[in-house]
Parts: sequence; C-alpha cells; structure tokens
Amino acid sequence: MSSFVRVLYEFAGEAGSTEISISVGEILTVTRTDVGEGWWEGKNSRGEIGLFPAAYVEVMSAADVKQQQQRTTVEAQTAPNRYDQTADEYNDGDEWEDDWDEDNDTYSEIVPHNPSNNQVNSALHSTNDYDNKYLPTIPGDDTSQSLVLNANNNPTTLKKSSMFGKSSDSFILGMGNKDRIPDNELVLIVPLDNLYQWQPSHQHYTVVVASPKKESKFKGMKTFIAYQLTPSFNNISVSRRYKHFDWLHERLVEKFCLIPIPPLPDKQISGRYEEQFVEHRRVQLQEFVDWVCRHPVLSKCEVWYHFLTCTDEKIWKSGKRKAERDTYVGITYCWAISPPEKQLLQSYVDTQMDSCSQFIHAMDTAIRNLLSISNDVVKRYQTQIKKEYQRIGEGLSDLSRALLIDEKRAPSRNGNALSENVARIGDIFSGIGVQFGEQPKLDWIPFSDRLHIYRGILNSFPDILTTHKGAMQKKKDCERLAAEQKMSNTQLAEVNRRVDIVSYAIIAEITHFRFERETHLKQTLKLLIEEQIKFYSSIVSRLEDAYKEIE
Amino acid sequence: MSSFVRVLYEFAGEAGSTEISISVGEILTVTRTDVGEGWWEGKNSRGEIGLFPAAYVEVMSAADVKQQQQRTTVEAQTAPNRYDQTADEYNDGDEWEDDWDEDNDTYSEIVPHNPSNNQVNSALHSTNDYDNKYLPTIPGDDTSQSLVLNANNNPTTLKKSSMFGKSSDSFILGMGNKDRIPDNELVLIVPLDNLYQWQPSHQHYTVVVASPKKESKFKGMKTFIAYQLTPSFNNISVSRRYKHFDWLHERLVEKFCLIPIPPLPDKQISGRYEEQFVEHRRVQLQEFVDWVCRHPVLSKCEVWYHFLTCTDEKIWKSGKRKAERDTYVGITYCWAISPPEKQLLQSYVDTQMDSCSQFIHAMDTAIRNLLSISNDVVKRYQTQIKKEYQRIGEGLSDLSRALLIDEKRAPSRNGNALSENVARIGDIFSGIGVQFGEQPKLDWIPFSDRLHIYRGILNSFPDILTTHKGAMQKKKDCERLAAEQKMSNTQLAEVNRRVDIVSYAIIAEITHFRFERETHLKQTLKLLIEEQIKFYSSIVSRLEDAYKEIE
Repeated sequence: MSSFVRVLYEFAGEAGSTEISISVGEILTVTRTDVGEGWWEGKNSRGEIGLFPAAYVEVMSAADVKQQQQRTTVEAQTAPNRYDQTADEYNDGDEWEDDWDEDNDTYSEIVPHNPSNNQVNSALHSTNDYDNKYLPTIPGDDTSQSLVLNANNNPTTLKKSSMFGKSSDSFILGMGNKDRIPDNELVLIVPLDNLYQWQPSHQHYTVVVASPKKESKFKGMKTFIAYQLTPSFNNISVSRRYKHFDWLHERLVEKFCLIPIPPLPDKQISGRYEEQFVEHRRVQLQEFVDWVCRHPVLSKCEVWYHFLTCTDEKIWKSGKRKAERDTYVGITYCWAISPPEKQLLQSYVDTQMDSCSQFIHAMDTAIRNLLSISNDVVKRYQTQIKKEYQRIGEGLSDLSRALLIDEKRAPSRNGNALSENVARIGDIFSGIGVQFGEQPKLDWIPFSDRLHIYRGILNSFPDILTTHKGAMQKKKDCERLAAEQKMSNTQLAEVNRRVDIVSYAIIAEITHFRFERETHLKQTLKLLIEEQIKFYSSIVSRLEDAYKEIE
Repeated sequence: MSSFVRVLYEFAGEAGSTEISISVGEILTVTRTDVGEGWWEGKNSRGEIGLFPAAYVEVMSAADVKQQQQRTTVEAQTAPNRYDQTADEYNDGDEWEDDWDEDNDTYSEIVPHNPSNNQVNSALHSTNDYDNKYLPTIPGDDTSQSLVLNANNNPTTLKKSSMFGKSSDSFILGMGNKDRIPDNELVLIVPLDNLYQWQPSHQHYTVVVASPKKESKFKGMKTFIAYQLTPSFNNISVSRRYKHFDWLHERLVEKFCLIPIPPLPDKQISGRYEEQFVEHRRVQLQEFVDWVCRHPVLSKCEVWYHFLTCTDEKIWKSGKRKAERDTYVGITYCWAISPPEKQLLQSYVDTQMDSCSQFIHAMDTAIRNLLSISNDVVKRYQTQIKKEYQRIGEGLSDLSRALLIDEKRAPSRNGNALSENVARIGDIFSGIGVQFGEQPKLDWIPFSDRLHIYRGILNSFPDILTTHKGAMQKKKDCERLAAEQKMSNTQLAEVNRRVDIVSYAIIAEITHFRFERETHLKQTLKLLIEEQIKFYSSIVSRLEDAYKEIE
C-alpha cells in the first residue's frame, strides 16, 4: 500500500544530489519514510524519485488517496514490495508472539500469573490463527494517515521515527486537525506564581512493582521473569515482563515528544535471572512506574492505563494495536494541549529556555559525576575495603595463633587467654569487612538506581529544546513569509500561538521536573544518608563488641 | 696500650687462611678486637699474626700484663698507633661535644633546660680544656680489662662489639669473677606456677616524656629538640635529646645481652623539627621509657637511673664514663643473675626454647603483617578515602550549583531552596573526608607506634636464642671434654649451672614478655578500637546533621 502526500512548501533539491525539487500543490507517491533526519523519499508525476523534507508535505486522506490512485495506477503498481512490507507490519502480532526469538524474547503474559495459566497460554499460542483473528480490518478515513505514520514504528526504526516526530514544523504550520482530539487527551497548562504547570491531577495513585518471579512455560523450556504491578486505585495485580515495559516505553516516547519519559532499567543479556539482578531491575522499574504515576499528563494517558489494568489477553492485544495506531503522537500531540491565553514574550521565552538549557547541562554533568562517584564507592566497598577489613581480621587471627603457641608453652593460671580475645576481635573485624562488602546494596546502589532516572530525563531535554528551537526558527521563517506577504497575519498569529503552546509545554514540564526532584532528590539523599547512618552505627556497635573483649 | 690474653683452649687455625693456631697457656698480644663474629686478631711469641676465637682466651690482669710487658717490650712497641687510638677513645668527650658535626649532632643538654642556661653552656664549652679536666685517670687493675673491651664501643663498631658480647662461651667457661659483683647489680629469678620470672620490682614508678621543645644555642645558629622526662619517684624533670636516648640504648644493649631492649624511634634526617614528627617521636620515646620502667631488671639498672635523674653536667659526664666502663656487660652480666637452685632438665629447656623460637617467629610475622596493614590503612584513609568523600562533597556542590541555576530562573515561593540543602550536605561529606584524612593520627598511627616496640623486642630474640644455642653447644663440648677426662666433673657441674643461668634468664625474659604484652597488647587494641568507635560515632553524628537538612 503506497501513501501519497501533497506538497505544502516549495523545496529546491540540490543539483547532483539525491534530493528532488517539489512545488506547492504537487502530489508525490511516498516510496520511503525510513530515510531519517526528517527526510522522506518520493516519486513525482514525472517518475523522478528523490528525497524531500517530510515537514514540507501533508499526508493525504484515504479519500484523496483513492481518487489519486485512480489517476496513478501505474505508479502505485511500481512498488509492490513496499505494499507487502506494509501489510506485514499490520501483522506485527506475529513478531510479538515469537517465543523462539531469543533476542526479542516476546512471550506475552498479560493475566496475573499463576502456574495453572501456563497451559492455557500454551494452548492460546499454539497456532498463529489466534493472532489472525485479531488482525485489524483496514481502517477508514480517520486512521489512514496514522497508518502511514505508524508504518515506520517497528522497534528497529524507532529512533528515526521519533526524530521525525520531534520535528515541530508540521504542528507549527497547523497541519492535522485539532477538532478531532478526544476529550480524554486534552491537557491544560495553568499559571502558578512565576511559573506555568500542567494542571495537577486530582486522582493521585501509586503502583507497587513487586514479586519478580522466575516463571516458565513449555514445560520449563522457556523461562522468564514477571513483575506484579498493583495500582492503588483498583488493587488488581497485573503481570508484566520487561518486554511489556519496553513496548510501553516506546509508546510513551513516541507520543510525548515534549515530555521526558523516565528511562527503563538497562537491558542486560547475561545473567538475567540472577536474584540480585532481578531485584535490582524491580527497583528500577518501580522508579519508572513511580515517576509516571506522579506525572500529571503521563499518569492519565490511555496506553498507560491499559498497561496498568488490562488482565485480558484479547483486550490487551486490541488495546496494544490501538495504542500503536494512535494519531496524537509526537508533535501532533500538541493539539491536545491548552495553555493559558496569554501570549508569551519572546524575551521571557528566550530567558527561560537559555536558563533551562544551562540548568539541564549543569545538572546532567553533576548527575553523571555523582553516578561515577557512586560507582567507584560501590567498587571500593565491595572489593578494597571489604578485603582490607578482612585483612585486619586475618592479621589479628595470625597474631592470636602466635600468642596461642606461647600460651601452650606455659599455660597461665587464669584461663582468660589473650589469644582468644584477639581471635574474637579478628572475627569482628572480618565481619565488618563482610558488612562493607554488602553495604552498597543498601546505600550507594539504590542511590545510583534513583539517579538513573535523572540520566534518562536529562538526556531527553536537549531533544526537547532542539524541537523548541526548530519551532522558534519556523516562527521566524513565517514572520519573514508574512513580511513578504506570502503568509497572512491571521496565519502568522496562529503560528505564534502554536509556538507558544510548545513553549508553554516545555515550561510546564520544567516546572514539573522541579516539583518532582524537590521530592525525589530529597528522598534519594535521605535514603542514602539514612542507610549510611545505620551502617556506621552498626560498625560502632560491632566495635563496641570488640572493645568488650579487652575491657 | 696493648692488651694480652692467655689461651684457655687449643684452636687449630685453618692452613692458608688468616687464622692462627693457638695452644693452652700461650700468651698472645691482641692486635685487633673489632674483627667481629667472635674473632680477635693477635700475635704470638713467634711474631705470627692471625685470627683466633676470642672465647678461647682469657684477658690478662694488669699485673700480669706488666710482667708480660717486661718480657715483650718489642711486641708492645709494634702497635703505637693502636695505643694512640685507644687514648683518643678516652677523650670521647671531645667527639660528644662537637657541636659542629651535623650528623653526629651531639650537644649535651643535661640540666633541665631554660634559655638562660645557653650562655653558661656556651661558656663551658668554649674550649676543650673543660673536658680535659674530666679526663679519667688511668684506672687500676679492675678496669684494665673493661678498657680493652670498651675500646671497641664507639658507635661505628657497636654492632660487632655487641655480637662479640653475645658469645656466651666466656661466661659458660667461668671467665670473670662473680665475687666482685656489686650488690645493686644482683637480680633474682623466682618460680611462678609453671614459669620462672625476674623477681618483681617493689618500686614501681613511671616516667612522663613531655613537652618536646625546639631549643637553640649559639644565638640560634644551632637548634635541637629536648624532651622533658619526669620520673614519678622524684618529680624532677630532666631534659634529654634523642642522642642521649641513643647513648643510653647502646649501653643497655651492650649490658643486657639476654634481655631484649625496646627500640628507639627510627632516626630521621630530614624534617626533624616538624611538629608532627616531633610529637610522633615523643610518643615512641614514651613507649620506650614505659617499657624500660616496667621491666624488673632494666628499671633498676644504674645507667638508667643516671639517665633519668642526673641534672648536673659534671656528674653526668662522670656517670657517663662510668657506664661506658661498666664491667658487667654482655654475657659477663650473667654473673649477676641468681636463678633458683633447681637444675633444669635438658628436655624442659629444649621444649621451652623450641616453643619460644616458634612463637617469636610467628608473632614477628603477625606483627610485621599488622604493621603493613596499618600502613596501608593509614595511606588509604589519608589519600583515597579522604579524596573520595571530598569528591562526594564536591559532586553534591556541583549538583547544588546546577539546581541554583533553575531556582534563579524561576524563584520558588518557599525560600527553602533545595540547592542550599544539597550544598550543606556536600559540605558535610567534604568534612567527613577531612576527618578521614586526620583520623589515622588518632587510631592507626598510634597503633603502629605501639607495635613498633614489638618489632624491636621480637628482633632481639633470635640473637638471644642463638646465644642460648651457643651455651648449649659449649655445654656439649664440655661434656665431651669431661668424658675425655680433659675437664673435671666439678668444672662440668659449674658449666651446667652457668648454662642453666642462661636458660633461666631467657625463660624469665619470655615470662616478662608475656606479662608485658598481656597489658600492652590489650591496651594497644583498646586504644585502636576506642578511637575507631569515637571516629565512626562522629561520622554518624555528621550524617545525622546531613539528614536534618532534608528531613
């Protein structure tokens, strides 16, 4: 299935390059959307093929496409492979359920897991027919555009897709139709003192990520870890695997190009089922879930609710496909944002963005540094200090054995031999060594885990700020067009309003980030210091035991 | 002035070597006593010069020498240089007072020091005449032997001299005369359960080593550090420099060849007057003084009393010379020891010595190891951990500065900015780093200092055990001589008794070492653990302050 676009702005392709020149109103057949960097490949009516800026064109509706197809049957038939590929992408359920792909380990475990479900699941997945039943019917007008956009959304091309999605031009220029936005997507930005913030959610809730369990199916031939998620609003547990989180994360990144999505724990190939790793991952997933729950926009979005609550395999799959076909993704989502009416001053926006950029850079450096320090401290505790205290312990044991030789030579009247005291003190020091080795699990590793979130959040901001810069540039371009009478003042006012929406959204997001870290960073430091206090107190208490040996 | 010896045992010098063969009754002119390893060089009546075992000859009395000199004028005149050298050694006051010899920095500061003494001292030492007044008159019979022995006692040949002194043969074979021992030299060994011990002293006392002060003379051209020693039995302070301790130490090592003398702090050339070094040395000198004070034999010996109490320059010099001419030094001191009458069983002695040897070796290894550990811990605290905590502190300060950028962008209503809390927590962590850097001065360095004593004590035992082995060998030799009718049974019984004295003395010394370490080692560990408890408690308290920032 080919897609067609209508050219909105002129673009002169560079001679001798792979670029193609396009004129306003011209209709192109899209031959590739996975070029990257905001470029698509297309063919014009003269059969010339070349690259053009995707932001300079408008995807045509299904009706237009049909009409066009009648006119351009020949062209449409020149890309039969492309058509097949697109059809395959509809059928991505097949890939999703391919249990035998090790790297893409994708068994779906949606219902709250208990061992008796294994058989049911095995039965459900024994043939591909199951999925075929849920293959979508070809959608009507409303979704044809999103189909094309989403044709590119399989995981291997996600990066390019999201780069495209973050180009703000399409929205700034008023592409898409805000009238169609469903009410549940709408979000408000409201003033707060000197700041603007997302309208706070009235439905606060939490979700506990618990009990990671090693489960198996196909009589143990395949094992996986499932985490139990229990939202506070319904208290119904759902069972989710890392791959489900990964899928959710992709959806969120795709949908919210102005909101940093907290990172998932890093993927790890080897030793996936080691107890320590699993618990570590659980903690990081809990962090991810907490962050989303506390976000006024993310916490109420549909795909998230679906992820948190769905316990039915069929509903899961249809919800999954619905999310994957969501139209309000990337910059298009901005249509859903209602900021205050007040027009933002250019100088205010510039100052805010400059300051934000500086702050993000400085905080990113600081967090990286703290993570590196934490990493070093962990290693030092687990190896060097552990060994050093054990070496002290062994040194004292050696001394004790030496003393014993002399005590055996001529036993002393009082049985309270120094060798025994020294041996016990040695044991206590060795014990302190062991405790040093274990301690990072309680203080510095959780500290790192909690900072991991910041790395992800801070990493997202530069792209967001770049998107904003793009919007500002487009605004200037339009001002020039308006000055040249190529754009009406009304149109320019609308452009400015839409640029303001981007600015407002980013300011609201920075505000949220501040609120968030006021709590989260304090809590992070609190946990670290609390555990360190406990740790050093317990060393004091061990040393007091040692002291009693020689009092 | 030459010395003469009479051959007690036959010795066949190896042909082609520098050794000389000697026959019983033959009289030799001693040409060198500083050969080392128990060898002397001598000339026989035929003019042949060669090495012989010093233990195989008897030093002749002055009367004998005179008689001999009449017969051997020619031989005596062949060694005029030797005579001159010996005369110089009498005049060692010159060397002692040579203020301008940097390496041998030897100004004598005996009276409790105050600045007004400087002039007096300068006046006293302005000519060499002062010392000449106190040159000893040539001594009579009693001291001629010791003169020869002491001719070798200048610091550069001390090691060889003391090696000779530890050869037990002269004593085992009954050389010297125990009837001449003054009462104050006599020491008893008494039984105690399974052990034997030096008769405990009834006069316990302590000596405080305090107030190291940088003093100067010659209008500041010459500076030195004087330590104030105050014994508890008279409460009169004396001022002593390191070189006085060094001199005392030489005397004690020379005198007590079966008693390990605690070591002095290591000599150090550079940075002698740095405050930290001076205090460090004071602590180690205090350890030395404490150890001597607690020793039943050392604590009552004359040279020690002289060192502790003498405040008069003239008395100091005469006492010093008296000590240097002490006859009861090295193995000869054994005449002063009265052990129980009970004859020791060979098997008992063997077991005791074997066990002792094992113990000393094991404890020496353990102490070396602990010192090495302590050294590593000190370095780690002072550099790595200090830096690491400071790095944490700086990391938090960086984070605080980053947060401040955002706080300035849009000031928050409540003035309680997170950046300030984080900055203060950063300061606390940096402070903990500083504390880690300072801490070794309070725990591990004093620990090492206290173990230093053990290194010295344990190092002395192998020589003592070798002396004992030599005595046991000599006993076997005498048993063979007796079996060959070359020694009477009465003589053999006396030899055995004298070997027992050596065994008793070593067993008593090991017993003392046990008592000593029961207290000293406990105290050493106690101080370490006590300081560590204080340290970790104070870290807890600092962390509690940090916690308050984010409560």
